[in-house]
Amino acid sequence: MSATLPPPEGWKSVQQPPSLFRRFEFASYGETRAYLDRLAALSEETGLYPDLGFGPTHVNVTVYGADGKAPGAREIEFAGKAAALALPG
Amino acid sequence: MSATLPPPEGWKSVQQPPSLFRRFEFASYGETRAYLDRLAALSEETGLYPDLGFGPTHVNVTVYGADGKAPGAREIEFAGKAAALALPG
Repeated sequence: MSATLPPPEGWKSVQQPPSLFRRFEFASYGETRAYLDRLAALSEETGLYPDLGFGPTHVNVTVYGADGKAPGAREIEFAGKAAALALPG
Repeated sequence: MSATLPPPEGWKSVQQPPSLFRRFEFASYGETRAYLDRLAALSEETGLYPDLGFGPTHVNVTVYGADGKAPGAREIEFAGKAAALALPG
């Protein structure tokens, strides 16, 4: 990340680190909840905690790299597992 | 910007350059339109074209730095002028 000048008064300085994003859709609230539970278990297992947003039938997953860097092999592996967990079982 | 690995299939790689953001509110659609016109003139004058989003009574302005770099003195000066143009005249 490069150094930034302070924003002018009234403006917000926006600096988002690179990430991987995916939206997962589910048929019901119950399935959404079950996916969130599986995702939580995966996070505890891997130590990798993505940003999550969800509604009744969807979950938005944003995976950041470590220390503001681009997502690397570890995050890509996590993303693959997170996607597999969303498949109907 | 650091090099990134390609995202896994189905995922979107998100890489937003740093920016300055501000939302301007207006009392009417006419005032919003008038502001957009003034902003367009400022862009032509300065050669600096921010990203714009607007509704009937608001305009969201996002100013990026050049070449994916953080906003610098030129962008900060533009932001100041853009804010001044939004003041009720």
